[in-house]
Amino acid sequence: MMTKFFSIDKIPFKGKDNTDPLAFSHYDPNEIVMGKRMEDHLRFAIAYWHSFAWPGGDPFGGQTFDRPWFPDRISNAMDAAKIKADIAFEMFTALGAPYFCFHDADVRPEGRNFAENTDNLNAIVDVFEQKMDETGMKLLWGTANLFSDRRFMGGAATNPDPDVFAFSAATIKTCMDATQRLNGENYVLWGGREGYETLLNTDLTRELDQLGRMLNLVVEYKHKIGFKGAILVEPKPQEPTKHQYDYDVGTVYGFLKKHGLEGEVQMNLEQGHAILAGHSFEHEIALAQSLGIFGSIDMNRNDYQSGWDTDQFPNNVPEVALAYYHILKGGGFTSGGTNFDAKLRRQSIDADDLLVSHIGGMDVCARGLKAAVAMIEDGTLDAELQNRYAGWETKQGKDLKSGALSLEQIETLVRDKDINPTPRSGRQEYLENIVNRFV
Amino acid sequence: MMTKFFSIDKIPFKGKDNTDPLAFSHYDPNEIVMGKRMEDHLRFAIAYWHSFAWPGGDPFGGQTFDRPWFPDRISNAMDAAKIKADIAFEMFTALGAPYFCFHDADVRPEGRNFAENTDNLNAIVDVFEQKMDETGMKLLWGTANLFSDRRFMGGAATNPDPDVFAFSAATIKTCMDATQRLNGENYVLWGGREGYETLLNTDLTRELDQLGRMLNLVVEYKHKIGFKGAILVEPKPQEPTKHQYDYDVGTVYGFLKKHGLEGEVQMNLEQGHAILAGHSFEHEIALAQSLGIFGSIDMNRNDYQSGWDTDQFPNNVPEVALAYYHILKGGGFTSGGTNFDAKLRRQSIDADDLLVSHIGGMDVCARGLKAAVAMIEDGTLDAELQNRYAGWETKQGKDLKSGALSLEQIETLVRDKDINPTPRSGRQEYLENIVNRFV
Amino acid sequence: MMTKFFSIDKIPFKGKDNTDPLAFSHYDPNEIVMGKRMEDHLRFAIAYWHSFAWPGGDPFGGQTFDRPWFPDRISNAMDAAKIKADIAFEMFTALGAPYFCFHDADVRPEGRNFAENTDNLNAIVDVFEQKMDETGMKLLWGTANLFSDRRFMGGAATNPDPDVFAFSAATIKTCMDATQRLNGENYVLWGGREGYETLLNTDLTRELDQLGRMLNLVVEYKHKIGFKGAILVEPKPQEPTKHQYDYDVGTVYGFLKKHGLEGEVQMNLEQGHAILAGHSFEHEIALAQSLGIFGSIDMNRNDYQSGWDTDQFPNNVPEVALAYYHILKGGGFTSGGTNFDAKLRRQSIDADDLLVSHIGGMDVCARGLKAAVAMIEDGTLDAELQNRYAGWETKQGKDLKSGALSLEQIETLVRDKDINPTPRSGRQEYLENIVNRFV
Amino acid sequence: MMTKFFSIDKIPFKGKDNTDPLAFSHYDPNEIVMGKRMEDHLRFAIAYWHSFAWPGGDPFGGQTFDRPWFPDRISNAMDAAKIKADIAFEMFTALGAPYFCFHDADVRPEGRNFAENTDNLNAIVDVFEQKMDETGMKLLWGTANLFSDRRFMGGAATNPDPDVFAFSAATIKTCMDATQRLNGENYVLWGGREGYETLLNTDLTRELDQLGRMLNLVVEYKHKIGFKGAILVEPKPQEPTKHQYDYDVGTVYGFLKKHGLEGEVQMNLEQGHAILAGHSFEHEIALAQSLGIFGSIDMNRNDYQSGWDTDQFPNNVPEVALAYYHILKGGGFTSGGTNFDAKLRRQSIDADDLLVSHIGGMDVCARGLKAAVAMIEDGTLDAELQNRYAGWETKQGKDLKSGALSLEQIETLVRDKDINPTPRSGRQEYLENIVNRFV
Repeated sequence: MMTKFFSIDKIPFKGKDNTDPLAFSHYDPNEIVMGKRMEDHLRFAIAYWHSFAWPGGDPFGGQTFDRPWFPDRISNAMDAAKIKADIAFEMFTALGAPYFCFHDADVRPEGRNFAENTDNLNAIVDVFEQKMDETGMKLLWGTANLFSDRRFMGGAATNPDPDVFAFSAATIKTCMDATQRLNGENYVLWGGREGYETLLNTDLTRELDQLGRMLNLVVEYKHKIGFKGAILVEPKPQEPTKHQYDYDVGTVYGFLKKHGLEGEVQMNLEQGHAILAGHSFEHEIALAQSLGIFGSIDMNRNDYQSGWDTDQFPNNVPEVALAYYHILKGGGFTSGGTNFDAKLRRQSIDADDLLVSHIGGMDVCARGLKAAVAMIEDGTLDAELQNRYAGWETKQGKDLKSGALSLEQIETLVRDKDINPTPRSGRQEYLENIVNRFV
Repeated sequence: MMTKFFSIDKIPFKGKDNTDPLAFSHYDPNEIVMGKRMEDHLRFAIAYWHSFAWPGGDPFGGQTFDRPWFPDRISNAMDAAKIKADIAFEMFTALGAPYFCFHDADVRPEGRNFAENTDNLNAIVDVFEQKMDETGMKLLWGTANLFSDRRFMGGAATNPDPDVFAFSAATIKTCMDATQRLNGENYVLWGGREGYETLLNTDLTRELDQLGRMLNLVVEYKHKIGFKGAILVEPKPQEPTKHQYDYDVGTVYGFLKKHGLEGEVQMNLEQGHAILAGHSFEHEIALAQSLGIFGSIDMNRNDYQSGWDTDQFPNNVPEVALAYYHILKGGGFTSGGTNFDAKLRRQSIDADDLLVSHIGGMDVCARGLKAAVAMIEDGTLDAELQNRYAGWETKQGKDLKSGALSLEQIETLVRDKDINPTPRSGRQEYLENIVNRFV
Repeated sequence: MMTKFFSIDKIPFKGKDNTDPLAFSHYDPNEIVMGKRMEDHLRFAIAYWHSFAWPGGDPFGGQTFDRPWFPDRISNAMDAAKIKADIAFEMFTALGAPYFCFHDADVRPEGRNFAENTDNLNAIVDVFEQKMDETGMKLLWGTANLFSDRRFMGGAATNPDPDVFAFSAATIKTCMDATQRLNGENYVLWGGREGYETLLNTDLTRELDQLGRMLNLVVEYKHKIGFKGAILVEPKPQEPTKHQYDYDVGTVYGFLKKHGLEGEVQMNLEQGHAILAGHSFEHEIALAQSLGIFGSIDMNRNDYQSGWDTDQFPNNVPEVALAYYHILKGGGFTSGGTNFDAKLRRQSIDADDLLVSHIGGMDVCARGLKAAVAMIEDGTLDAELQNRYAGWETKQGKDLKSGALSLEQIETLVRDKDINPTPRSGRQEYLENIVNRFV
Repeated sequence: MMTKFFSIDKIPFKGKDNTDPLAFSHYDPNEIVMGKRMEDHLRFAIAYWHSFAWPGGDPFGGQTFDRPWFPDRISNAMDAAKIKADIAFEMFTALGAPYFCFHDADVRPEGRNFAENTDNLNAIVDVFEQKMDETGMKLLWGTANLFSDRRFMGGAATNPDPDVFAFSAATIKTCMDATQRLNGENYVLWGGREGYETLLNTDLTRELDQLGRMLNLVVEYKHKIGFKGAILVEPKPQEPTKHQYDYDVGTVYGFLKKHGLEGEVQMNLEQGHAILAGHSFEHEIALAQSLGIFGSIDMNRNDYQSGWDTDQFPNNVPEVALAYYHILKGGGFTSGGTNFDAKLRRQSIDADDLLVSHIGGMDVCARGLKAAVAMIEDGTLDAELQNRYAGWETKQGKDLKSGALSLEQIETLVRDKDINPTPRSGRQEYLENIVNRFV
């Protein structure tokens, strides 16, 4: 049995004047906003990997965290995995987040082959089942880590070696099975090695086809086993790979269309990945909604001065508010939620730093959500938008949009009516000021 | 009649030891490479806008070039347009490039309304027809400038005002007509303002639908008038607009699929735009070919330390060689070609700088092409690639790819055979060294 | 006499629940924070160039603004300059900003040579003198535009042609004279063309020496005329020039040291320039303060997805708060202030957009300032910092820092005491959460 | 004794038509260029860390390389270090590079404390001494790894804990001693953790002072022990740290000036670090030479699409040629050289990939050097430069530069002579074409 790891069992809500670092100031799960409990809007999930599996290393330095379940503290890997699970669920409970997420490799010891990996995973799923039962925790999504092991160095589905494809497919199956057993509400695919380092050794067409095949296998299997959750692809432009095929929402949409999967697969969007692809987070959310493929979010932030994925906890309320504004405008989450794919800075080595960072992130999201709700309920932004496009609701606007007029007919119209459009102010600063009323 | 603008009538080819700045060292149009004249491989085009319409301004400074056809030198706009055309064709002839490209706004005076614009355009097309007849010059592509005039500040097809959509559509029609009259081999759409400055004033879904409608109008009209050329979309991620809808090849492909246009529209790819989108030029080429939508290229380069579109003349042979390597591997150009969408640095104010810059660019492309041919004829790179993916040509590889096996069957396979893949070297440095044999 | 340009004479303060777009919600000049009027902390200045001289153009499009003083509306340049001044002072008064800033080229008609430029400038300075007297407006700083005219295309002080150096020096003198006459509190030098496009045509050593000479000329002249204000250099890494010598604070500091000017010249720091150089704004502020060369700020923001200088109005309170936090920690402004080097988006074409944008910016700064004050008065952040470095206040810490110990003595110390440091948490997330109590 | 690790003992030179991947095509150490052996120009060094210490991990995956000296293959750390040294010297010899470079942590087992680290280092230095004697290998530079161990997570010299400063200082001393014993020609300091993750927990002024003290300790000790080599600082803007104090050449120069060290310390410049700081490599070289602080280079390249340090082998001859052009123009290397701070892609797992990658890099540098020599011997570029600045050699130019004229006198000059400069073409494209004659 574990000794106590954290200094507190349960993080209380103390309201906006709170100065206790181990209490929420803004996140009150039961507060009703827009007719729904805040918890049911935000659907927070804690990511297993950053908080429990990552040792604090970076490309220029090794482990900084000292955890009772790390190999330098305990030699039996299955015992370590169980201690890790104990403390993970302690933290989930303390934070009161309703969900968690995991990769197979986060939770089980690494086996010597596929069979051992599967056995190890299933053993941990047994542990999880019991803990979820005891605590009421739910699984937002499961996923397979097909990028860390050396065998995936050249890709998983897109590997030049079909054996790696097979190994990956089999691993995905076991992870889908685990997710199904734990009533996971989504299954995620992030293709960290699905891309290339150099086109010189890459057959792009082959690899994209392989990726399409894999995704079809997943969808077929989902239906086969009656998995009710959503299949989510998580775009990222690069890192670790120089170029990743699932570059961004627009790119993945084209890929789904090519493989007939746009009705079957949705997006898991991460703020940091959007930034690396040259987009704002709200762009990726709005585009995914527009294309009907929005699913879930990985909430974090990327340092704007760093060219790699910094996976920091969100701390900028105005930015977070715009993300939730677009999420709410599209109807809010269905199967998705707000997963903290965020990690401590490697110097934040105290156990309680894990709590403090999540509390900060959850409070920022709560503030962002409430600001988004206020913007929507106020209605000014939306009214401005309706007004700006009002011309498209006229007869002529509708004709232009519907295809009722050919290019020649439009030319005649322009010539005959001497259409010579007068610009109207885009009012960007005015709209930005309105947002600032709420954040 | 013009006095002489350039110091030379015709740029000669003097071979690789040439030191004359007004002679080609590598571009010999009649040299046969891979069974074809170099001219027919490269299909060079000169862009009207940068060389003849741009005054040398940048965001912090105004006109630097002194040209006889600029408003400070001549007041009658149609006379100016004709002098400009005279000198443009002098330059085309001097360089011996077979093609040119233009926007309406580059070549005709700006009118007070649509009708005047059209009349002015048609008057210049008359001039062009005669000059093309005299010189043998051909039109690689025509296009409409739907971004410079104030009326387009909020977009052309994607404007909140349907009048702008109509004006844009009518303008496109006149430009397609002009292109058709001049036997243009392609028609290009670059949506510099098709995007947004802020999502706060933007209805993404509406605007994307408007863009889809416009592109369908274009394709319908193409078939109506029997235009034999290709319709090309030119992706760019941003600039002037904060976010442009035609972000990159992957994004445009998805857009085309959504609107059922993937068989009708191809890509005009620019090196600088690829860089701004976070891609190498060869990536965009290879991806477009893989998706079956490669069309033509805008050859230039972007300064790697600048975050805007620098449109410089290409000068790095190894980079250019990789671009042509992928173009040739995909079969080379059909209707497309190599358009120099490149501009002088604004300090290069001498008339002959126009010649010198194009000579340099054409020589660099010639060297790049020859290096690409040599890589292909050598065959080592391709053999390495075949070898790397050989496993996919086995029975098991084919079964995995074809969908013959379900996820469960693959799992059984992996478990039963204890498939545990052994990584093989990706040999990137070896392949890069091979490239360096040729560049 | 002008007809009314704006729809309001004076922007009122209506408090934080205000929804009137033409009223302040947070900026109350007379509110006392940290013992001083908010106006005296922030020292707002309005920039002449963006609001009154810029026509709304960008690299892909021309004028979008319709202003009574633009050449298309009035032909006599001096009359235009006076109308512009009338409306500028109307706006200054309406906003209640105590200061403005200008370049010579913003305010006077362009002459045919140096003498005409000087005469024109002096004529406008007469106008300004009277208007400042009438309105109580003050001049935060003046500066010379040595980048827009064609003659500066290859640099001003760093031009290969000494005539340009001379012309630039003479122009600076007239602008310093104008600034002195108007009791300007600072004189600024931004070297937009002081750098290079390519090293191939650049003698770096010569050009840096020329720049050093020019800056010494300025300082000598300042003392000669008894100018009481500060001489400020404004760093920027690039744009318009590929590389600018005044890259960032660290670089300029080295330059000042080399030329013996570190006690004579301070920094005018801009948020957008910091971002382009790869720094956060607060980094540049903190570094300048640490080096004793902090002077003033150009407040704006840069779009994080754009690689050029977007000069937008600030709208992110948490970011602005950190800037003022560092400014206040360093003692606040002395001669410097908060100059809005920010421009409307080019689609914001209504006259009142000019007011709205500044109101938004001023409110954001007021909120930022108040948050910064609260952080300082709270003291937690500062206490954490003291605590983190407490070891350096011990005897051993002081010996290490003072140079009392040689490398060998330190080695002996480490060996003898077996010094083996134990890391302590950096507590970054905790500190970020504290900031979020106040923003 | 080791079994054979590589497939070849000695890489031969086979000339430019060579197709053998294990032979040089361009690097012939004895070829005389510009009056000196190519080996003596280039002064190649092999970096111990990337080739022998790095396991192939990245932020998303672990070890890919299988090396006999890695912990999974041998348990005794000192034995492993010796095997590693054996194979390292085999490779040095095979490649015929005259120099190598190392950090303490690359070569010795990690001890439990400072004393053990020192003992381990000295044991390996014994090994190196013997091997250098046997092979004729020389040490270009030594350095201390003050960033990988957990104790340095918050900085080495700039740590908030003076114990870490002391530990770092003592470690540097042992590494300087080792470098001195091995007749190293330089000693390098790269401050990977000398910077900050957030200003919230950072006292910038303190930390910069600590860094200044450390560098002074190093210089004092250098003189004390009579070390004849140069002390080199290696700038990098960020990674692993969000902001590093030694940002770039300009920043470090200011730092050296502040601490009176500009005559004592020079720069070790890396291509990848220049790119990350927003500079071209040749910029950093030219600036360092201009400031009199150029020392040595770390030759590699950074992927232009990746925002982190990719440390790839150089493969672009035109870029490398410009670097050597500036090095040669400044007189070439004295104590410095060309260190390959470049690593295999992690998929390049074959032993011979280590050779192939270095062969490619050395050949590219040889081609770059020869092109640079040709540009210098041709003289056209230099003549153009002299001509461009010729005005500064006139009486008036000299007076302006020397300070003979005050600002007022210059104004009088401009006014009296009506100086109104006429721009001359910058001829950038012409100059770029000239470069392309040679690369």
